Amino acid sequence: MPALHHHDPVFVLEFGDDENRFSPEWLTSVHTMLDTVCEHDGPSALVTTGLGKFYSNGLDLAWLSANAERTQQYVGEVHALLGRMLTLPVPTVAAVNGHAFGAGAMLAMAHDFRVMRTDRGFFCFPEADINIPFTPGMAALIQGKLTPAAAVASMTTGRRFGGPEAVELGLVDAVAPADDLVDVATARVRELAGKDRGTLGAIKSTMFTAAVAALEMPTS
Amino acid sequence: MPALHHHDPVFVLEFGDDENRFSPEWLTSVHTMLDTVCEHDGPSALVTTGLGKFYSNGLDLAWLSANAERTQQYVGEVHALLGRMLTLPVPTVAAVNGHAFGAGAMLAMAHDFRVMRTDRGFFCFPEADINIPFTPGMAALIQGKLTPAAAVASMTTGRRFGGPEAVELGLVDAVAPADDLVDVATARVRELAGKDRGTLGAIKSTMFTAAVAALEMPTS
Amino acid sequence: MPALHHHDPVFVLEFGDDENRFSPEWLTSVHTMLDTVCEHDGPSALVTTGLGKFYSNGLDLAWLSANAERTQQYVGEVHALLGRMLTLPVPTVAAVNGHAFGAGAMLAMAHDFRVMRTDRGFFCFPEADINIPFTPGMAALIQGKLTPAAAVASMTTGRRFGGPEAVELGLVDAVAPADDLVDVATARVRELAGKDRGTLGAIKSTMFTAAVAALEMPTS
Repeated sequence: MPALHHHDPVFVLEFGDDENRFSPEWLTSVHTMLDTVCEHDGPSALVTTGLGKFYSNGLDLAWLSANAERTQQYVGEVHALLGRMLTLPVPTVAAVNGHAFGAGAMLAMAHDFRVMRTDRGFFCFPEADINIPFTPGMAALIQGKLTPAAAVASMTTGRRFGGPEAVELGLVDAVAPADDLVDVATARVRELAGKDRGTLGAIKSTMFTAAVAALEMPTS
Repeated sequence: MPALHHHDPVFVLEFGDDENRFSPEWLTSVHTMLDTVCEHDGPSALVTTGLGKFYSNGLDLAWLSANAERTQQYVGEVHALLGRMLTLPVPTVAAVNGHAFGAGAMLAMAHDFRVMRTDRGFFCFPEADINIPFTPGMAALIQGKLTPAAAVASMTTGRRFGGPEAVELGLVDAVAPADDLVDVATARVRELAGKDRGTLGAIKSTMFTAAVAALEMPTS
Repeated sequence: MPALHHHDPVFVLEFGDDENRFSPEWLTSVHTMLDTVCEHDGPSALVTTGLGKFYSNGLDLAWLSANAERTQQYVGEVHALLGRMLTLPVPTVAAVNGHAFGAGAMLAMAHDFRVMRTDRGFFCFPEADINIPFTPGMAALIQGKLTPAAAVASMTTGRRFGGPEAVELGLVDAVAPADDLVDVATARVRELAGKDRGTLGAIKSTMFTAAVAALEMPTS
């Protein structure tokens, strides 16, 4: 389960040491930790990462198959987390330590910046292969962060991108060796931790108005 | 006139050996061949190309000047082809063998990917020079596939881009020698031919909702 | 105060030799010169630049603090200049000779192209640091000209970009030594000066419909 560490002024949110899928408990835990980061009295910035082979594999398909009647509500909750991260009023960076698949990759995209481990792990939107089209909100989020060519190359192919390919396409901003990953990610946001939260939140909300609106649409 | 070849699982649609302008008969023929590609029982992907000096020069201005009273309907039909290609439920790549001008260049942009002959031919939106502004649908299609800088550089200048310049600006994804062009284009989509068509069509329709809506607006 | 020079077919609009902030008189003067450029009988293109250390520092905060009750009207007038430059019916290029901050940087973004002095001056959106969030119109203008990654890197950080960094991120199209700056900028638009103004204005208006609409929204 998630854990939150404070290396003032940066908070490091570890998603866990397994596939870090979005179970209802996991979502609640992450939201609570984001509350801590955003309500901190003093400069604050966020790094998220996983432990081991996975950043996050996204939707909790096992839970979903056991709770099919709650699919709509669940997708709405995933949308809510993506929209919250997209407009979080502190600087955010994903330290992609391993596989980031589907909604896990989308959560990384919702951060301001992304740094990926150089030598292992794949960044992948498998939707075209698992026959789950993107919701309008998920598509608007991803397309709001990528060039059109990168969106087509990643969203219509199901292709898996290693770190060097991901940085070349612009899926991530940089790569770093595994041992330095969190430090390199931290360096991206440490100097930004003092921004006024009302201002930064308003800037991100204005920049991503369309994606936020699409993420807030009722899911069907 | 167009011809369709099948190198299972890839279909190669040859637009013809002249300027390959969009006459009403040409449009009907291409739609029929797209039906074949999309209704094929088994994996399917599409490469389009021309023979000789031209990929396509776009609008059939000779036909239009003889049928001026049908301009609105004709533009609507061109929009329909562009919208159909933009959301075609199979992987698509344009093998730009020679000049792609105006609506011919737009048709190339509507594909998922573009590979252009290295040494000859120009990719060009001449609208700023021939005093035919882009329709909102055409602009939305082009801008939906390019970075803003590439859209300004190509749409406001009438500039002609050779292969190397086109790939540098991102108008096309890659260049290849003429003899290898169709093979290189084919390699981009062959492995993708097995995607579920309902899923892939839904993904593209969601990604390009705004451009599709603009292309479906009545023309005036 | 601004001055307009004519090196047929190119007009060079010098914003002034101080910080070139947008005082009401400055705005009126610039609009009058844009009238001259757009009404010129013959081919016409526009280069804008400053003299000395500044391209423009944007909003006239001194005037604003003395006229706080006119803030809404003033912001509306700044929006009007940005929208006019964004869709000006002649080719436009900003020769960024020195600091371009805030609305000064936005005015540069509203041009078709930007060339920046190599060795001095910063391109910067300080909004995240001065606690003035972008208006929806300003954000739509900037995002309409940048890749998503460049928009996040410049709009959420307050970071100052020198010429080489600005060109790497795509904030500007090229850099040039100070002595060659206006010549290099001029070379970008001289060959384009003969475009039909009705066509070019229509193309830009269609391309940037969303940003223009956002800039025309009442400010609150």
